Amino acid sequence: MAEAKRVTLGHGAGGKLTHDLVQEVFLPRFRNAALEELGDSAVLSFKVGGRLAFTTDSFVVKPLFFPGGDIGKLAVNGTVNDLAVSGAEPLYLTAGFILEEGLEIEVLHRVAESMAVAAREAGVEIVAADTKVVERGKGDGVFINTAGVGRVLDGVELSPQRAQPGDKILLTGTLGDHGIAVYLARQNLGIEVPVVSDCAPLNTMLLPLLRRFGKEVRFMRDLTRGGAATILNEFAAKAGREVLVSEEAIPVSPPVRGACEMLGFDPLYLANEGKALVVVSGDAAQDVLALLQSHPLGAHAALVGEVREAGDEERPIVLLRTEVGGLRLVDPLIEDQLPRIC
Amino acid sequence: MAEAKRVTLGHGAGGKLTHDLVQEVFLPRFRNAALEELGDSAVLSFKVGGRLAFTTDSFVVKPLFFPGGDIGKLAVNGTVNDLAVSGAEPLYLTAGFILEEGLEIEVLHRVAESMAVAAREAGVEIVAADTKVVERGKGDGVFINTAGVGRVLDGVELSPQRAQPGDKILLTGTLGDHGIAVYLARQNLGIEVPVVSDCAPLNTMLLPLLRRFGKEVRFMRDLTRGGAATILNEFAAKAGREVLVSEEAIPVSPPVRGACEMLGFDPLYLANEGKALVVVSGDAAQDVLALLQSHPLGAHAALVGEVREAGDEERPIVLLRTEVGGLRLVDPLIEDQLPRIC
Repeated sequence: MAEAKRVTLGHGAGGKLTHDLVQEVFLPRFRNAALEELGDSAVLSFKVGGRLAFTTDSFVVKPLFFPGGDIGKLAVNGTVNDLAVSGAEPLYLTAGFILEEGLEIEVLHRVAESMAVAAREAGVEIVAADTKVVERGKGDGVFINTAGVGRVLDGVELSPQRAQPGDKILLTGTLGDHGIAVYLARQNLGIEVPVVSDCAPLNTMLLPLLRRFGKEVRFMRDLTRGGAATILNEFAAKAGREVLVSEEAIPVSPPVRGACEMLGFDPLYLANEGKALVVVSGDAAQDVLALLQSHPLGAHAALVGEVREAGDEERPIVLLRTEVGGLRLVDPLIEDQLPRIC
Repeated sequence: MAEAKRVTLGHGAGGKLTHDLVQEVFLPRFRNAALEELGDSAVLSFKVGGRLAFTTDSFVVKPLFFPGGDIGKLAVNGTVNDLAVSGAEPLYLTAGFILEEGLEIEVLHRVAESMAVAAREAGVEIVAADTKVVERGKGDGVFINTAGVGRVLDGVELSPQRAQPGDKILLTGTLGDHGIAVYLARQNLGIEVPVVSDCAPLNTMLLPLLRRFGKEVRFMRDLTRGGAATILNEFAAKAGREVLVSEEAIPVSPPVRGACEMLGFDPLYLANEGKALVVVSGDAAQDVLALLQSHPLGAHAALVGEVREAGDEERPIVLLRTEVGGLRLVDPLIEDQLPRIC
């Protein structure tokens, strides 16, 4: 069997080897007019005036491949989702790769292919990229940064400060799938659990919702690192409101619930990569829920709680009504449950 | 002496520790309205229609601090320069940090401060950021990705394909300063050489030039990884032209020349972080040169060569007229002279 081709420091030097890597791995897959120029920047027509959304995330997930996705799919959808929950139509992405010397080129091919498929599915183009290589033992296979720009929909204003008492809290689906899928892939526990990451592009579901319900939607956020508990706390703090959620209304799939019980995790703190929190007016809540549930990514969407006046405006809180009927304070994540989950 | 505060995996978890790090290290320095929202994306007004430039680079330079700069200054100026040589006014940057567990928080403070100073100097805002943490031994202190967007100047068209025989090749200053400064800082050879990195924001020099000379400027590119030799080859290949440069016209400072002779480096292949190649019409060349030389960053700008018909259009080449009068073929960089130079 031939020796696998591997990444060398020369692949990061900006010369012929970098050129070959780009030609062989990235260009055939990300192909678009802006990228093919291979200029210092992609030059893009952005003819409509208006508001630009601009975001970035780095991805260091371990392992690189897991049930339901891989670091490439995650890197595209993560940034697509950050744009979508900001009310923006995702348009263009950049990709920055930090490779560890010795990485099999074949792994890079798989990651690039996965990014290309995810970009097509989300309707975005990867228009600029960069590759660096670090010595063996100074990185960990592949790290990817993506940045993205999008066009904010006209008339859409999303902000925690727009939330009012009586607004409803919706989750677009079950919690914890990504966290548990990656954890099990990493631990190699030999447990057979049918859990796959929920990694998906939320723009296809959330932008039609914004177009239809406009200002009835107060705020949206994807439920990544820190999980729903942390995002709810950030929302409450910025809104200056109290949030009350019902434990029994929170959607969690039976296998994720089982894994959480066995492993001691709380699904409220697990990362998701295809789920969002949506805060809407009380009047629109049932219609928004129905629209979410009619989309394949929102089949398990649920109304889980509501916004209330803060009892103590200095310290807005998130309260959980437990299944046995008590009230529990939900804190934001403090220590890391699962490092390198995305 | 108190134990130094260090980065833990929890700082990358997206919960309270991440929040504290952002509040303590990044927000006070990068402060601007878009960033302070701490939303999923920065929402920016981009009222003028037109063309958007969008670029990204990751930075893995070793060591993190070197004479004339550090990884933070480099990360800002590198992306600012990619926008500027594309004919765009740099507007907004994002920053993605991949930190190694155990990094002293104080180091991160210094890097963030340096980014803030560089951003102010270049006239850009860092509007979104992300922090991830990897385990000790899976990273190397700090890696930074920056992405940037800018507004392409009206009427400016920069492309190698616009170059014509008779066009002149200009370099905006001396070659090799960054490469030698970082190499010496890394090797700790005990050689006292007064070489500092040329890391600087080129927009302040190049955009006024574009505004004044418009389409007389055919193409610009900053001379980073791979050095002038690699960039000249990329230009020749895309232009389908031959390039002839004069060795004695190429500006190299005496200490860099001395270091190159001692260490066996060729300044044509060394990385620069504040220098650009500028291709202009023969008619405008002297005026462009004078304008460059009137700017502090262009004091040593020089006219070093010209564009010619390609002898073999299938394989355009870069020729160097040596100081003794011969002609030598200049190849692009193949192996890496200096890994992790940026």
